[in-house]
Amino acid sequence: MADGPTINTIAERAGVSIASVSRVLNGLPTRQETVRKVMAAADELGYVRNAVARSLKSRRTNQVAFAMADIGNPAYLAMLRQIQPVLKAAGYRLVLHSTDAVVADEIDVLHGLGERYVDGLIMSPLRVTDAHLELLAAARAPVVIIGSVPEGTRVDNVRADSRTGVRLAVDHLYSLGRRRIALVNGPLDTVPGAARGAAYREALEDLGLPYDENLVQVGDFYRPEGGRAVAELLARVPDVDALMCANDLIALGALDVLRAAGRRVPDDVAVVGMDDTDLAAASWPSLSSVSLGSAERGKVAAELLLERLKGGEHEPRRVTVPPHLVVRASTAGAGPDERAARGGSREAGGAGERGAGS
Amino acid sequence: MADGPTINTIAERAGVSIASVSRVLNGLPTRQETVRKVMAAADELGYVRNAVARSLKSRRTNQVAFAMADIGNPAYLAMLRQIQPVLKAAGYRLVLHSTDAVVADEIDVLHGLGERYVDGLIMSPLRVTDAHLELLAAARAPVVIIGSVPEGTRVDNVRADSRTGVRLAVDHLYSLGRRRIALVNGPLDTVPGAARGAAYREALEDLGLPYDENLVQVGDFYRPEGGRAVAELLARVPDVDALMCANDLIALGALDVLRAAGRRVPDDVAVVGMDDTDLAAASWPSLSSVSLGSAERGKVAAELLLERLKGGEHEPRRVTVPPHLVVRASTAGAGPDERAARGGSREAGGAGERGAGS
Repeated sequence: MADGPTINTIAERAGVSIASVSRVLNGLPTRQETVRKVMAAADELGYVRNAVARSLKSRRTNQVAFAMADIGNPAYLAMLRQIQPVLKAAGYRLVLHSTDAVVADEIDVLHGLGERYVDGLIMSPLRVTDAHLELLAAARAPVVIIGSVPEGTRVDNVRADSRTGVRLAVDHLYSLGRRRIALVNGPLDTVPGAARGAAYREALEDLGLPYDENLVQVGDFYRPEGGRAVAELLARVPDVDALMCANDLIALGALDVLRAAGRRVPDDVAVVGMDDTDLAAASWPSLSSVSLGSAERGKVAAELLLERLKGGEHEPRRVTVPPHLVVRASTAGAGPDERAARGGSREAGGAGERGAGS
Repeated sequence: MADGPTINTIAERAGVSIASVSRVLNGLPTRQETVRKVMAAADELGYVRNAVARSLKSRRTNQVAFAMADIGNPAYLAMLRQIQPVLKAAGYRLVLHSTDAVVADEIDVLHGLGERYVDGLIMSPLRVTDAHLELLAAARAPVVIIGSVPEGTRVDNVRADSRTGVRLAVDHLYSLGRRRIALVNGPLDTVPGAARGAAYREALEDLGLPYDENLVQVGDFYRPEGGRAVAELLARVPDVDALMCANDLIALGALDVLRAAGRRVPDDVAVVGMDDTDLAAASWPSLSSVSLGSAERGKVAAELLLERLKGGEHEPRRVTVPPHLVVRASTAGAGPDERAARGGSREAGGAGERGAGS
């Protein structure tokens, strides 16, 4: 590039200051007239703009990638909402990958680090395979994993704690005087299904409640399946007085079925969901739900990565974001929902429709 | 770069085929052993990887940017969910910007095109200012605008039609025999507030219904404000039998207040929202809502941009995505909600929590 045109020759040709050229070429706000002059001069001189040349020099791209397992999953979108502004504030552009939870796609993203198109990567894989681990060991750029990794993996890692989350929910239901607390779970051959099942059993034992297989119903992590599971449960155990649901969608299905069966929530049956999605505040009755801190995990992951990008050479870090229970009408009786306003303002952009929608 | 190491010299040094080197350097799936050999050889030879050198040669980055006004807005997230896979399938990485609806940020993004860090841009601004137009005219890469642009603007443009959307809702309520159809709107000094107000008035006139100022209540585009507006409306017009709400959040607030007032929905008062967010299917009763086609607008925008990137030199295109009404329990009486399943599967990733949450 050294032999090619420089900002000096462009400034001369455009008849503007070198500072102006720099501002324009770096995309900083500049008077339109100046922008046009500089762009014209740059074109005439065949100047190749030049994030590219700059990164050749610095080997930096000022880009960070976030590889999310599922772009349709509110939990990952909550992470994204936190990651984006943190990186933006630090001057990094965000490259977004959605791997559709396909391991091969995640492997491709890790391989791609060799291309040096980003300075770092935040990845939230469904599960970490040996292939992940080999590539993480050889990674050409800092990586932060949101999710669990095997002990001893030398990578910064931010994780949730669904076990404690289930515990919080069961303890809450117990504190309300409920003693027939059922678990409506997803498939047991999934990591969360297994973990939530084990956590439920532990929680009961610690509370001195008997573990009753009849109180455990396995369906899937979706609303209709959740509803069907609860219908079966009600038929088998009519006197159930509380439902711990393994995610919010299962809980929404539970509310559908309880309503149809004429069971009052929470008077007859109290219901707790998990993940604390926007849907929890929108449902009626509004849904108490365990937050696994998706937003916080995104924020922490971005901050850990920024530290590495500043050259932090410390040992790999592991941060566990503690869960918390958001109590709403489905366990606390109807009442003002402190989350409605926030749920709303997160959607302020309905305002966004102002631009697109008219 | 020509004088530096090449994939030939790396292949020699690593003792693998040139094809293998190419696969590794391009981040394609490759045996771990090969990856390690190639990476080692590349390091020893001081090979600078090299999306960078390739784009210097081709002047292409294989990246496309999407600048969304508000990363917290479900309407934009719906666009993003469609844009990302379309670009991924075409081999482009997605660079995500959230401008927080700040014009200066949008201007920066347009300026930034001069940096050539992307091959094209999709932007969804709240409103298009003169500064936008000047930069669009001088843009160094193809741009597609989601939203309205002034007549004659030479840029590909995908827009919604909220006017027809309001019409669909009012006609639907009329067809249900409702004759006291109120509008619960956002601020009239916003583009959508003004447009939806005008569309409501037109719709009534075409139906031969009198325009009654008492039936128009202006609040803001959020749930609590929507609820307050409906409370005022009920006090002033107790016999109102239908509410056209300017977005889903207003409609959720309306359901809160109607429930508290003991009005049955839809028997006493039918309610329609707008934007058809995930919240509409989660509410109870589930909310009939006008979809302004956010997802479709994102898909069309991505496809238009890809055509430009293939070198399409045709005239600027304008595509208007027609709205459609999604009828649910708030106007149709309770019943199976055909959207619940989809609302659910969009959140299959609750499954995503499988990785993070255990």
